[in-house]
Amino acid sequence: MNPSDLERQLAFLREIDRLKGIVRLTPLIDRSRRENSAEHSWHLALYALVLAGHAAGTVDVLRVVKMLLIHDIVEIDAGDVPFHVPSTHAGQAERERLAAERIFGLLPDAQAAEFRDLWFEFEAAESDDAKFAKALDRFQPMLHNAATDGGTWVECEVTLEQVKSRCRPPIEGGAPALWTVAAQFAEEHFREPPQES
Amino acid sequence: MNPSDLERQLAFLREIDRLKGIVRLTPLIDRSRRENSAEHSWHLALYALVLAGHAAGTVDVLRVVKMLLIHDIVEIDAGDVPFHVPSTHAGQAERERLAAERIFGLLPDAQAAEFRDLWFEFEAAESDDAKFAKALDRFQPMLHNAATDGGTWVECEVTLEQVKSRCRPPIEGGAPALWTVAAQFAEEHFREPPQES
Ligand SMILES: [Ca+2]
Repeated sequence: MNPSDLERQLAFLREIDRLKGIVRLTPLIDRSRRENSAEHSWHLALYALVLAGHAAGTVDVLRVVKMLLIHDIVEIDAGDVPFHVPSTHAGQAERERLAAERIFGLLPDAQAAEFRDLWFEFEAAESDDAKFAKALDRFQPMLHNAATDGGTWVECEVTLEQVKSRCRPPIEGGAPALWTVAAQFAEEHFREPPQES
Repeated sequence: MNPSDLERQLAFLREIDRLKGIVRLTPLIDRSRRENSAEHSWHLALYALVLAGHAAGTVDVLRVVKMLLIHDIVEIDAGDVPFHVPSTHAGQAERERLAAERIFGLLPDAQAAEFRDLWFEFEAAESDDAKFAKALDRFQPMLHNAATDGGTWVECEVTLEQVKSRCRPPIEGGAPALWTVAAQFAEEHFREPPQES
């Protein structure tokens, strides 16, 4: 490998440090602050390692982990658009596509192509690996919401029906046993009297 | 897989959320704040994916990534002890061993054993996978220090000789090409007049 490949690799690794500054709506479980997209990606990679046995299809754990480690890197340019705030979603797919080209393009060509392809596969959510990865990306915030008296469900003023219609297809499609648990979390929360904000 | 396995897995995934609150000395590259151990682990997993071609031995990338994703989880109980502050290191190995037993022990038995074994393998730094993982764990802070006018080198008042004697063996042992670059970073920094703090 020639020195300029290593320089490109280090430029990419420096650039993605910025993902630590992209803040999501989701609270940490201790409610001390909101989660950033870098630590979120770390957490999801652990979800994949620990919960792989619950995947709907046959999954390649390394590919799923790679997808989850890189899935939010586009937010460095495109920002995070909260799942439960649909008004922010317009134009986001195109902003993220441009971001994927620029940021993964910092890498040597073969690695850039591999990461871009993995990112597009994740976004398409059609392969078994991508379906499982997407399921985890939707499941983890539900677990945080359940552990924090509602989290973004309360903040975004969503209904139980909205949570179910938005979260059931991706979670059930990638990890049916996790949807069973997630639906229980949501039903338990929405049974309680509404929280004062 | 029975429901109680899933409950143990979710208890583990909730517990490790606390790693996002363990703050290291290393600054983010934009110097906005210090890095936490969860986002640090995410970053290192990306280092492994991107830099695997520079490993000294033959490495299994999935095993290296797993090691890096879990290597700091013990800090939830044991805290982070800064590499360049040796006075904090006494007793840390034993605190971390107890933490590994408790935290990985939240998982179903087979997964608990796998994660414990991987963590001990990382700590021992004898296998090719562990040597490469350790090299990355030592290399990443050097890159951050170089990008922030000295970072913890300045804060901990270390000399070029201390940086070399502490960092060369683990980095060169796991990824010789990265040591060449890291030594250049350090030499460049220490050639400059000392920074005012
Ligand atoms: Ca996202």
